[in-house]
Amino acid sequence: MKSGTRKGEKKKPFKKGTHDLLFGFHSVLEALNAGKRQIFSILISKSRRSGRVHKIQTLAGQKDIDVEILDRETMDKLTGYANHQGIAAKTGFLPVKKAGEVIERVRESETPCFILVLENIEDPHNLGALIRTALCSGVNYILIPKDRSASPSAAVSRSSAGAMEHADIYMITNTAAILKSLKEAGVWVSGLDADGDTALFDADLTGHIALVIGGENKGIRPVVKRECDFLLSIANKGRINSLNASVAGGIAMYEALRQRI
Amino acid sequence: MKSGTRKGEKKKPFKKGTHDLLFGFHSVLEALNAGKRQIFSILISKSRRSGRVHKIQTLAGQKDIDVEILDRETMDKLTGYANHQGIAAKTGFLPVKKAGEVIERVRESETPCFILVLENIEDPHNLGALIRTALCSGVNYILIPKDRSASPSAAVSRSSAGAMEHADIYMITNTAAILKSLKEAGVWVSGLDADGDTALFDADLTGHIALVIGGENKGIRPVVKRECDFLLSIANKGRINSLNASVAGGIAMYEALRQRI
Repeated sequence: MKSGTRKGEKKKPFKKGTHDLLFGFHSVLEALNAGKRQIFSILISKSRRSGRVHKIQTLAGQKDIDVEILDRETMDKLTGYANHQGIAAKTGFLPVKKAGEVIERVRESETPCFILVLENIEDPHNLGALIRTALCSGVNYILIPKDRSASPSAAVSRSSAGAMEHADIYMITNTAAILKSLKEAGVWVSGLDADGDTALFDADLTGHIALVIGGENKGIRPVVKRECDFLLSIANKGRINSLNASVAGGIAMYEALRQRI
Repeated sequence: MKSGTRKGEKKKPFKKGTHDLLFGFHSVLEALNAGKRQIFSILISKSRRSGRVHKIQTLAGQKDIDVEILDRETMDKLTGYANHQGIAAKTGFLPVKKAGEVIERVRESETPCFILVLENIEDPHNLGALIRTALCSGVNYILIPKDRSASPSAAVSRSSAGAMEHADIYMITNTAAILKSLKEAGVWVSGLDADGDTALFDADLTGHIALVIGGENKGIRPVVKRECDFLLSIANKGRINSLNASVAGGIAMYEALRQRI
């Protein structure tokens, strides 16, 4: 896997849809550390050359990646006025795999697999936080529908504090079909649902499991819900009807981890 | 507690620092439902009169609260271009109490108390999400330092999906002193800390407990850490060093709830 273009080499011109623009310290640092995506150049804002930016500059040097120093205004425009912290990177897209691969991996696995299915998460902040938690809680495979969720964009990488750069993300075209195949491969499929009839803390989350988390507003679609072996609800002692999607996901992933330790 | 001014009554002019401007559907709805703060008037954007805005209008009518219809531009300016969803409210501030009261309440309580101390959470989104989770997980008292954390503002209410409107929030002037008093009252004080030597899932979180959550960047200050009976760490299977503060807080609060059910 290429981690950058050589200094002085003639770079190919950027074409729309062929490159991504990461921004923010953790995103750029973790993209460099993970080495999963191609990095064409590092962009540093003239006015923001702190110690941690220097750290990235050094790392880029070690990997023979070009560094461009830009004025603040150019940087703001390039990143669409995002909170870029004075640092960005021109990169290729994060490579993603097809969900079908996961089925084979599960069949071959000698240890219990933990699969996260992020059904239709629309908010990039939630998607980023869920991916970050997935990595911390030992999720092995993250499955995201191609057309229904926010995509693993630069904004999601930023929200994940760079965790997304290390993640193995698998794209789904048909969620219900994938869940069917997972069940055939011996996976217990659970879905997080406020009206679910299995209390999270009573569920058995050892063994091969998949956890489906639905969208912020409408939850898991009925066609996907039908494929779940059980629906998990999180206890609620309050007068407000639900938890934030990324917090609810975090609680469920860590309950699985607690049982699997 | 007054929930509004009567229709047609002469309203006092607004003075800077004496009123708040809530925005967003859930914040305004829950402020009306909770009845904790004074509501002077409801503001509705002319262009955004959906069914749920109508619901608020009806509720305001029942409570004899004035409704003003504004054009979109005025609404945008008033809310500082926040994502107001076409609805806002001129209100008094959310009443907060002094943390000293909690000590007495704990001494008198016949059931185990659960106290959350949000030490120096700077991001209003995190503060809102933590307050929302606290209400769902059965936290009895939420303590926030007066000068160190984001204050319970309209933005925090919005991030809490209105949960903040129902919360009992207590202001602290000296966190270390309050923790000392809580310990004297029989409370076990725990702090969430990535380097903590007690694994969250091994800790006993029954009985009177306080859970201290520190800031996003620097965690709990040393002077506060010294007052903790134990420091809780959350297992991390990843290559990224930490969870988002509101997710970490959610996992810890729900582990306490799990043990206390």
